Formats: sequence, C-alpha cells, structure tokens
Amino acid sequence: MLKHTEKQSLVEQAAKQMQQLIETGKWMVGNKIPAEPELMEQLQISRNTLREAIRALVHAGLMKTRQGDGTYVIATNVLATALQRRINQTSLLHTIEIRHALEREAAHLAAERRTDEDLHRINSCLIACQEASDQRKKADFILADLQLHQAIISSAHNPLLEELYTHISEIITDSITDFIEFASDEPYLLESHIRLVDAIISQDSETAVREVHCFIISYKNLIINGALNKQYE
Amino acid sequence: MLKHTEKQSLVEQAAKQMQQLIETGKWMVGNKIPAEPELMEQLQISRNTLREAIRALVHAGLMKTRQGDGTYVIATNVLATALQRRINQTSLLHTIEIRHALEREAAHLAAERRTDEDLHRINSCLIACQEASDQRKKADFILADLQLHQAIISSAHNPLLEELYTHISEIITDSITDFIEFASDEPYLLESHIRLVDAIISQDSETAVREVHCFIISYKNLIINGALNKQYE
Repeated sequence: MLKHTEKQSLVEQAAKQMQQLIETGKWMVGNKIPAEPELMEQLQISRNTLREAIRALVHAGLMKTRQGDGTYVIATNVLATALQRRINQTSLLHTIEIRHALEREAAHLAAERRTDEDLHRINSCLIACQEASDQRKKADFILADLQLHQAIISSAHNPLLEELYTHISEIITDSITDFIEFASDEPYLLESHIRLVDAIISQDSETAVREVHCFIISYKNLIINGALNKQYE
Repeated sequence: MLKHTEKQSLVEQAAKQMQQLIETGKWMVGNKIPAEPELMEQLQISRNTLREAIRALVHAGLMKTRQGDGTYVIATNVLATALQRRINQTSLLHTIEIRHALEREAAHLAAERRTDEDLHRINSCLIACQEASDQRKKADFILADLQLHQAIISSAHNPLLEELYTHISEIITDSITDFIEFASDEPYLLESHIRLVDAIISQDSETAVREVHCFIISYKNLIINGALNKQYE
C-alpha cells in the first residue's frame, strides 16, 4: 500500500516538474520533449511512472504524442488550455463580451496605476498605429493596435487580468482579424485610441472607461452584423 | 505500435467519460467513485487503462485518491480547477477586479437582454434583500444579495460569462463574506441595488453600468482598507 502511494506521488511529481519546464518556456511549444531514457535519468523515475506522467499532461492538453515519432509540447498553460476548450463551445460574440469586460476594467485600472514606463510603451504603440494608418498599411496597423491594447492591459498591473486577456485574445485573434479586415475603420479606431490614451495619461478613469465602452459598442455591432453567434473551432 | 495507439486512446476515452459523469453531476463532489471492477466492466477497459485514466483526472484536480479507501470526486470542472489554482497565487484585490469586470459587463448586457422571467427572479431576490435588511438579519441579507447578483449575471445570457463569474465567486466567497460582515453597510448596498434593478428593468444599460461601478468603488475601498493584497489559500 505504501509503495503504491509513493508511486502515485512520483507520477504527480514528475508531471508537475514537466509542467513547470513547459510553463517557464524551457520546453517550448512545437518542440519534441527529450527521449524516455534521458527523462528517466533526469527525473530518476521508472519508464512506467514517466509514461503515466506524460499521459496526465497529454490529458491536460499540454502535450501530444505522435505515434512512431515522439511527444510534443502543444500548449504552455493549463488555464489557457481549459479556457481554449471552453471557448471552443462558445459563440464568438459571447467570447468577445468577456474580453470587453476585461478591457473595460483594464482601462479603468490603467488610468489609476500606469507608471512612466507604461506611458512610454503606450505612446510608442500609439505612434506606430498613427504611422501605419498614415501609410495605409493595414497589417502593420492591426499589429500596432494589438500591441497598444496589450500595453494598456499591462498598465493595469493585475497579472491575472493580463493572463486571461492574453489567453482569450490568442484564441480569438484570427476570427477578429477577419472583421477588422473587412471593416476598414482605422481612422475611427485611431481617434478613439488617442482619446483613450489621453485619458490614461491624465489619470481620468471615467473617460478611459467611456472611450473603451464606445469603441466596444461599435466593434460589437460589426461582429453582430458580420456573423452573429459564429461558431469557431 | 497500433496496439499502443489504441491503448492511449482508450485511456483518453475513459478519462473523458468519467469527466462527463462528473461535469453532468452524475458523480457528485465529495462522493467516492465506483470500485475498480465495476468501472472496468462499465467502461470495458483493463485495470491498467482505468488506473491511468483516473491518474489523469487526479492530475487535472477533479479527483483525489485516498490510500486504503478509494477515489473521491473533489471538483466538477477542469476550467474551475485551473482557475482555482491560478487564483490561489493571486491577491484578493486582483481577483475581485476580475469579478468586477464580469459584473460590469453583465449589468450592461442584462439591461439589454433580460426576459420577463429574468425580471421576475431579480425582483424576488431584491424583495428578499429588503426583507432581510428590514429584519436586520445579516446572514439572510448576504445570501439574498449573492442570489440577486447571480440573477443579474444570468440575465446577461452569456454562458461563459456566467460560468467564469460563478467559479470566481465560489473561490472567493468566504474571503468576501468577512468583509461584508465587518462592513455592516446593507442600507447603502440595498439602495444601490434598487437603482441597479430599476436600470435593468427600464433597459438603461448606461445607468446599470454606472450603478455597478459606484458599488464596486466603495466595495474595493473596503477591501483595500481591510487587507490590501491579502493572500488566501
């Protein structure tokens, strides 16, 4: 009975160690994990224990075993994977509403908490947006726009908020790019972003939230008109 | 090689089946799962396959094996468990900010989408709040207040938003009750809730969001004054 306990906890320990290697980026997404003998040596565990630990991480969605090849890292984070699976069963509209919720709160908090360093980063992103808009470079604009949003989220100094926002954004970015592509509304976006950044600079939380809100409403109308409750995989 | 593939997929299949039994409430939290021979018979799998599948669900945080006793269901949902683990590393203030983000969005959406049935439920909860306040029954007030918030969240008709809100609320309810306990501010809460419900009834999204916002600010000040960045397990 005692031996069984030990073995169980070894599996858990091995799984947790490998999970940490993934979460800290030492094992990167897309890469094959080391061969069994090497891992057995490193973790000082038997082949069976190692295989069970890997099985647990496959079930958690962090790894995938390709028969006749090896085991690959396919995701970095259990929360991200759980969210991904749940969002796959959720309409795009409903998913975007969650992101908007986080975005509104972030604008409010960013206006309160932004540091000089945050403002510097936000300003650089805004300038990149303006340049891309002036030069009518759509792909550059979309990238700069994403980075601006990310900079504002970071300025909220709430790590969980930032993590949830980033996970959700990564999952839906492709679906969203489609809409921006056909919307061609950079001039409006840009003006609205300038007002938002001004509000964050002057620590005016209320205006920051209102700007995000206006931006969200027009954005949602695009989605609703485009593809209400579009399901994506 | 083919046999190995089959076995792998059997483990995954068995784990998924058991996960469904948990998620649909057929296996309830706190209960022991059936004995190995019964599960092997039901799922038509070997003892080893069954044990690996159980190990995967233990790793996902849905089950816990007590040596010499059996395996128990300890959580219903992978996303909830992943959130729980992440929130355990997060300050109470930051966690509450996520909940507030969802609450603000929900008030906005509830004002747009509430049905007659929603309004009926919201009104019942509000009446329960008023009665508990009149009779100065604190425990009743806290319960009715929670149910009112839950009713408003449901009226947003966004299942993912409701799920995230419910998970996060369950995780932090105890910490929060402490603050309401020592705040003794039902009269203010009640007035603010009446205005919020009125806004939802008259489909005035803006006022609904503003009321939630005011409520949140005073609430957060309580937390900040009470225990900034309090860590809870």
